[in-house]
Amino acid sequence: MSEPIDFYFDFSSPYGYLMSEKIDAVAAQHGRKVRWHPVLLGIIFQATGSRPPVDGVSSKSKYMWHDFHRSARHLGIPYNPPSRFPLPTQNAARAYYWLHGQDCALARQFAHAAYRALFVEDQDISSPAVVLQIAEKIGVDRSRLEAALQAPEIKARLKEECDQALAIGVFGSPHVVIDGEAFFGADRLAQIEHWLQSGGF
Amino acid sequence: MSEPIDFYFDFSSPYGYLMSEKIDAVAAQHGRKVRWHPVLLGIIFQATGSRPPVDGVSSKSKYMWHDFHRSARHLGIPYNPPSRFPLPTQNAARAYYWLHGQDCALARQFAHAAYRALFVEDQDISSPAVVLQIAEKIGVDRSRLEAALQAPEIKARLKEECDQALAIGVFGSPHVVIDGEAFFGADRLAQIEHWLQSGGF
Repeated sequence: MSEPIDFYFDFSSPYGYLMSEKIDAVAAQHGRKVRWHPVLLGIIFQATGSRPPVDGVSSKSKYMWHDFHRSARHLGIPYNPPSRFPLPTQNAARAYYWLHGQDCALARQFAHAAYRALFVEDQDISSPAVVLQIAEKIGVDRSRLEAALQAPEIKARLKEECDQALAIGVFGSPHVVIDGEAFFGADRLAQIEHWLQSGGF
Repeated sequence: MSEPIDFYFDFSSPYGYLMSEKIDAVAAQHGRKVRWHPVLLGIIFQATGSRPPVDGVSSKSKYMWHDFHRSARHLGIPYNPPSRFPLPTQNAARAYYWLHGQDCALARQFAHAAYRALFVEDQDISSPAVVLQIAEKIGVDRSRLEAALQAPEIKARLKEECDQALAIGVFGSPHVVIDGEAFFGADRLAQIEHWLQSGGF
């Protein structure tokens, strides 16, 4: 079994969502597991001076909204444009890391549910109440998670993950690392498959 | 025969170069011609507030240089990183438009030669002397082209093309338009093929 693939993303990233719907299956075809790392793009952008794909540039922003939707159709993934965007995702990320400490598979299930809540069901996943509701639906104890969202060790874990992402050169979402090789963007899926098939090219 | 595809690019754009090596063949497979439109990214970026992919953000710049090369290998296109980058491309663009007025096929041949001079042979295509030499090698009259590089009507033509590109929402290179549908980036080639095959998706 080869080394796991690392997948860095922000829960508010549309292209991160598209990657989240594909990366596990692509990795599994080549005998690989994926480690998911939700991070906060606000911190990444501030530290790197990078910018979100949708910003003040009107022709580019207009294109990107169109491209999110078209890219989802191209990949066969359901997508509805969220009415709140961008939005803070520390609650979803903290919930992920706390769950991951309890049950890896449940954490993965929560991550899919949170992404789909935002990009299919147009829910406001910045809200702790919405995050708790999403988690409750998949069997998580609501009151334990509610406490965990404010726990210093969970906040510290998220900060560590952001620091680690910056240290390895993450500047946006999604960012996938395979044996030290970095792939930025959902549109690098074809190169990721090519890389896994050929062991590098 | 369906409407031609429009391909906007700057001669200093690495992803524009990758698209230039693929777009005609992809279009031809679906009975389409391509109209090439060299433009100046300096003007596009100034007007839109957009930024080049390689800028002051070190982790992103480092990634992009790596990605140019890997994307070329992925697509099977020769590539050597240019030692001068970015560089002004008005001379190459003016030469293209003057040649296009004489002989469309020769203009296309020149465009390929200019792109390969920069991204394979590491030549300084910002230099009028280098542009003239590239053109001379494919049979262009050097002294007529030399005069054309300073001709007001050729300068005006390039300005019109940049204005037209801005008017239809071009914010970077390469930018491909198929029946009103815009595709930005060499990594949209798979979507372009999907679009041409299915008549939209």
